This record gives sequence, structure tokens and C-alpha cells, in this order.
Amino acid sequence: MIDKEFLMIPGPTPLPSRVIAAMTHPMINHRGPLFKKIFTETREILKKLINPDGDIFLIPSSGTGAMELAVQNFTNRGDKVIVVDTGFFGDRFYKMNLSFGRNAVKLKISYGRAVKPEEVVNFIKEQKDAKALFITHNETSTAVANPLKEIVDAVRRVSDMFIIVDAVSSMGILKIDMKEWKIDVVVGASQKGLMSPPGIGIVGVSKRALDFALGKDDSYYFGIKNLKAKGDIGQPFTTFPVSTLFGLREALNILLEEGFEKTYERHRIYKKLVRESLKEIGLKFVANDEDSSPCVTAVFSPEGINGEEIVRVSREKYNVEIASIQGDLKGKAFRIGHMGYINSNDLLVTVASVESTLYSLGYKFDLGSGVKKFINLRLNSGV
Amino acid sequence: MIDKEFLMIPGPTPLPSRVIAAMTHPMINHRGPLFKKIFTETREILKKLINPDGDIFLIPSSGTGAMELAVQNFTNRGDKVIVVDTGFFGDRFYKMNLSFGRNAVKLKISYGRAVKPEEVVNFIKEQKDAKALFITHNETSTAVANPLKEIVDAVRRVSDMFIIVDAVSSMGILKIDMKEWKIDVVVGASQKGLMSPPGIGIVGVSKRALDFALGKDDSYYFGIKNLKAKGDIGQPFTTFPVSTLFGLREALNILLEEGFEKTYERHRIYKKLVRESLKEIGLKFVANDEDSSPCVTAVFSPEGINGEEIVRVSREKYNVEIASIQGDLKGKAFRIGHMGYINSNDLLVTVASVESTLYSLGYKFDLGSGVKKFINLRLNSGV
Repeated sequence: MIDKEFLMIPGPTPLPSRVIAAMTHPMINHRGPLFKKIFTETREILKKLINPDGDIFLIPSSGTGAMELAVQNFTNRGDKVIVVDTGFFGDRFYKMNLSFGRNAVKLKISYGRAVKPEEVVNFIKEQKDAKALFITHNETSTAVANPLKEIVDAVRRVSDMFIIVDAVSSMGILKIDMKEWKIDVVVGASQKGLMSPPGIGIVGVSKRALDFALGKDDSYYFGIKNLKAKGDIGQPFTTFPVSTLFGLREALNILLEEGFEKTYERHRIYKKLVRESLKEIGLKFVANDEDSSPCVTAVFSPEGINGEEIVRVSREKYNVEIASIQGDLKGKAFRIGHMGYINSNDLLVTVASVESTLYSLGYKFDLGSGVKKFINLRLNSGV
Repeated sequence: MIDKEFLMIPGPTPLPSRVIAAMTHPMINHRGPLFKKIFTETREILKKLINPDGDIFLIPSSGTGAMELAVQNFTNRGDKVIVVDTGFFGDRFYKMNLSFGRNAVKLKISYGRAVKPEEVVNFIKEQKDAKALFITHNETSTAVANPLKEIVDAVRRVSDMFIIVDAVSSMGILKIDMKEWKIDVVVGASQKGLMSPPGIGIVGVSKRALDFALGKDDSYYFGIKNLKAKGDIGQPFTTFPVSTLFGLREALNILLEEGFEKTYERHRIYKKLVRESLKEIGLKFVANDEDSSPCVTAVFSPEGINGEEIVRVSREKYNVEIASIQGDLKGKAFRIGHMGYINSNDLLVTVASVESTLYSLGYKFDLGSGVKKFINLRLNSGV
């Protein structure tokens, strides 16, 4: 097949051509006026997107860097912190807290389901002196979306601890309203729902969390104090990934033009299209319909077929890049990303590739019934 | 649907990202050494592709410009010339000949079928003093491919007239061997099988046709004499579309890497996949299986549905750009381009869009049976 990759992994995601074009801008001085304009516009659009009452910081880092910033700035060494672990990225928040000497206690949820608000509340009641709650909004490793608003609402009835959200794979896809919902910190990254290349970490901060961080002095590269001093004059603290910023600003313009609510709705439909089509050929999912994510779908491999093999054949034979899965489920499942600059045609191609791949690998079913289901479901779905 | 156009018209075609990247090269002097290198490399690869024993000329023009160059340079005012008219572009060659005072006689073939070698031979026998034969290789308007090699073989048994081929939509998709088959002139363009943006006309010339043209002095912009004087020192006659040339050179590199024969084979499979899938939902074609083109497929609209409406709904609802059809068939059919940087995933999306569009417009059939057929046929097709 002529090489033309369909990138259907849970980030990085395909880039709109407008984003690619924006990144071809000649290099500019990251301390000059044009950079300041782009940097400021980008932060302003992100404020509209997640609505913090404090500030938005952009950092030259991956999403993990933004997570680490949150650990360093919004908790203190020795603090008890609660980490909800619904998968690989929840566990990462936990380990990171331990690395920085936080007294992290973990609420471990069996992988493949979302945490329930009452589970969080009960755990908080057990861990009375905890200073912060770390929670993953969308857990890409198991393709589960935690019901963030419901969780935060429930927590706020019993605690005013800092709530720190890993929204790396949900930002732009699942609604977040920091001020309205009373969330203190949200961390994200450029390469998922925001349809840009990797390289920029994003941190939204509430006013009270900002005050807390400004009173601390035990961070440097990720230090809010350093970032804010420069941020207030429209500059980055250190040298910034300039081309990526040109891309991110353009991607955010595209999201603004579409309208955030429409983007959220579109992804909810994607989830349904993918799941219902693959159910048609007898596949089972790691997460149930309710808990499952609008950003990514984790599918169990049929018995006797290795998930890594499915990923390889889909790539080599049908030019569709889907993702394997780590940890306990390694080899037993695979993942389809459907976030960002994706439309239903991309999903159709992916469902077709999964069907063809499984058929090639010996799974017995009525080949083509998945894509047939797909186009029937899509007909008037608006996507 | 989030806008992400699938461009499935018979040219311009989608561009490989390597071609787009190549075109971002800074502007250069079209009389300087780098231009000379790119210009020369491009001509050399095109020589490999169509094998003229004379020369290859590149001109700043559309395909029609290249056709006009052929009329001006390889025939004389008052000459009797035969034009095979299998559709819109055959007729264009005819009109162009009349504009330049050639005594053009037309072999008109009913639209939707290919011309037979014996029809051409019989016509030549009637028109004994004709100096040149103009023929369209692939007639995009009716989606018919004329059997060029068989026609040229038959003609060469009865005549040594100039054979001038419009290969605008076939170059790179259907094999052409000028020297081996004894063709005098082949005209092409950058934006079809050659996977580049429009803007460059291509003309391959046999040695004897070159000698003929160099003896003439009644052209200027398209004059072979002017083009050759500069071409021999690796330069264009007039200012050249430099960025497009960077793109074309890269596209030709990609075709070289794939191997021309593999590209031809791939397109033959595309034709089969599209036709068999659409037959499954009861559609009929303008051309029969044998005469139909590997570059483009013309499909009759089901009764009561306007072809232009199909094009509009496919574009607006499913983001797939297919083409309407001109002339007698206007409104009665539509066309799917499948040339150049296309793989089977693109075809799948297009078949799905045609199905969904027709269903939306009231055509009754088992929605999804086309895509189901498609992925069954594709399974081990290698595309």
C-alpha cells in the first residue's frame, strides 16, 4: 500500500494543515514582540478553554513535565496527598509524588473502570489530613474517563483540599471548568486534543493555588515563581519551542472556530461509532460503555491473537497506526485513539483496518459487517 | 464534520507530504545553479518515465498549454490532421487545431467507450493525406482509457504520420514508452498521476518530431526552438513556477522509489475495487469494465437523483470531494478520481461517502453493502 499513515493513537494526533503551515513561520526571537503576541494569545484561548481564576502557564515540556510542575508547586515535602490510580498515568502521579518526598497514599481502582465519586469521598474521610487530591481525568492506558465534575462536586462537599487534575489527554475533548467546578490545578499538553505537536506543557492554576505556589521556593525549571515573573510580561521563563507555539496557537484558533461544545459532542459520537461497530464483529472492551473514554478506545484482542500483532499488521498491511497497551493488559488488548483532528472518515478507515487485520490473523467473523454497521450509524450523526 | 477534505477528483490530486515539504524551499533564482540541478533532474526522471528519443520540455502552463504547444510545433497551418474524439478532451484537441488553422478532421467515438485500433486505421485510410494523429490516452470526461499501445501498433502498420498523445491524465498511471511504441509527442501536466500541484506542462518529443519543430518559426511562448535553446543549457525559456518544480521533482522521486510498474498495477487494482464495490449497490458505469480507466471512474446517478447533487452532498456531509461531469452526461453521472497519491483507505472513504450520499438522497439499497464488499476485495489485494 502506498504509504499514507492514518495516525490513530492516543496522541500525538494528526495535525490540521493550518497547524503545519503555521509552524513553517521563520524562527523568531523568543524575547521579541511577535513571540509575546503569540504567547499571550495562546494563554488567553486556553483560559477560555479551562477557565482558571488564577493563571495559565506554558512550559517547554511534555505532559509529564506539567504533572511534575504540579507536584512541585502545589504540595510540600512531607505533605500527605491522595492519588487516585485508575491506570498507568494515575500511578505515574503517585510515583512522582514519592520522588519528591510527598507522603502519597493511593486509591487504587481496578483497571478498566472509572472511579466513583463516593469512593473518592470515602477515601478522603479515611485520610483526613491529606492536603491534595491528584486525579487523572482521562486515563489513556485503559481508555477510561473519570467523571471529573461529579467527583469534584462530591469532594467539595467534604474537603477544600487542592484538587489537581491530569488533563493531558482530555483537554479540549472533555469539558473542564476550573472556576465553576472549583479545581485548583489542571495540567495538559499540546499533542492530544489540542491537535499540535508535542513539546508544550500547559498548567491552569486557581487563584488560591497560585498564591500557595508563589510562597514556595523549592523549584526552579518548573517553578511557578519563575514562570509567573516572566509570564506577567508576556515572556517564557526559559527558551521556548517557538515553532510548536505557532502551531498550538493556530490549533486553538481552529477549536475556537468550531466551538468547544461542538468538539466535545463530536468526540462523544466518535466513541459510540467505534464501539458499536466493533461490537458488531464480536469484540469486547476494557471499559464499559459508561466509563469508557471519548478520546480513546481499548479493545480486547480476540482469544489467541496478540494485541501487539494486531498493531503491527494494521500498520504494515493497512497503513493505520493504532496503539498497543502497557502493563497487565500488554498483548491482551489494543487501543484506538480518536482525539483531535479526526473525522468519521478516519474512524471508518480504522474500523476497516481492525476488521481486515483480525480477519488476516484468523479471527472468524463476517468480514465487513463492522464497516457496514459504521456507515449506518454515521449516516445522520453529523460527524 | 470536522473539515478534512478527501480530494477524489481526477486532478488536482492529493499531495504527498514530502511534496508539500519540498515546496516550502525558499525561493531561488530560476537562472541559478540549484534551479538548473532540479530542472535537469526532473527532466531526466520524466525521460525514464515516458522514454522519448528526442527531448523533454517543461513549460509554465496547464495541461491545455502543453496540448497547444503540440498543435503549434508539430503540425503546420493548413495541414490535415486527424483528431480522435472520445470525449471533452478529444474535442478540445480538435478545436485547438481549428484555432490554429489546421484542417482538422474528427473521428468521433460515442462517449463512454474507447476507440478501437481498427477504427483509427480505417479512418486513416479514408483520410490519406493526414499529417498527424491526435489522440487522448485517458479521457477523464468519460473515464475511458484508450488502448494506446494497440492503437499505435495498428497505425504504424499503415502510416508514419506524427502520433501526438494527450497523456495529461494518464502520465505516471498508464504505461507509455514513446521510443518503443513509436510515438512522436506526449503531453502531460504536473497535477494528475504525478502527484504535484498544477502549473507545469510536460512535453516529450521524438527525435524526428524535434527536428520538425526546430525547422518552424511560428510559435513563441510555446516555441520548441525557444524552449530547446534554453533547455540545452539547463534553463527554462521564461520564468518558471519554481516551488511547483521543487514539488514535482520530489513527487517523481517518490514514483521512482515505488517503481513505475508497481504504480501502474496499483491503479488497475483501484479501478477494480471501486467498480466492484459500487456494482454491489446496483450502480452502473459510463464505461464498461474493459474500456474504463484506472485513473477515474464515471458512475451513472441512480434514476431521479442529480449527479451534481451527489457531488454536493458528498462534499458537505461526508467531506469527500468527488467530481461532476460535463457535456451530455451533465447531471446524469458523477466521477471518482483515483489517481496519484491515493491508497485503498481513501477509496474506502469514497465508496462510503457515495453510499451514504445516495442513501440520504433516497436511493434504496442495503446501506453498507458497498463498503463491506470493498474490504473483502481489498483483503489481500496488496493496496
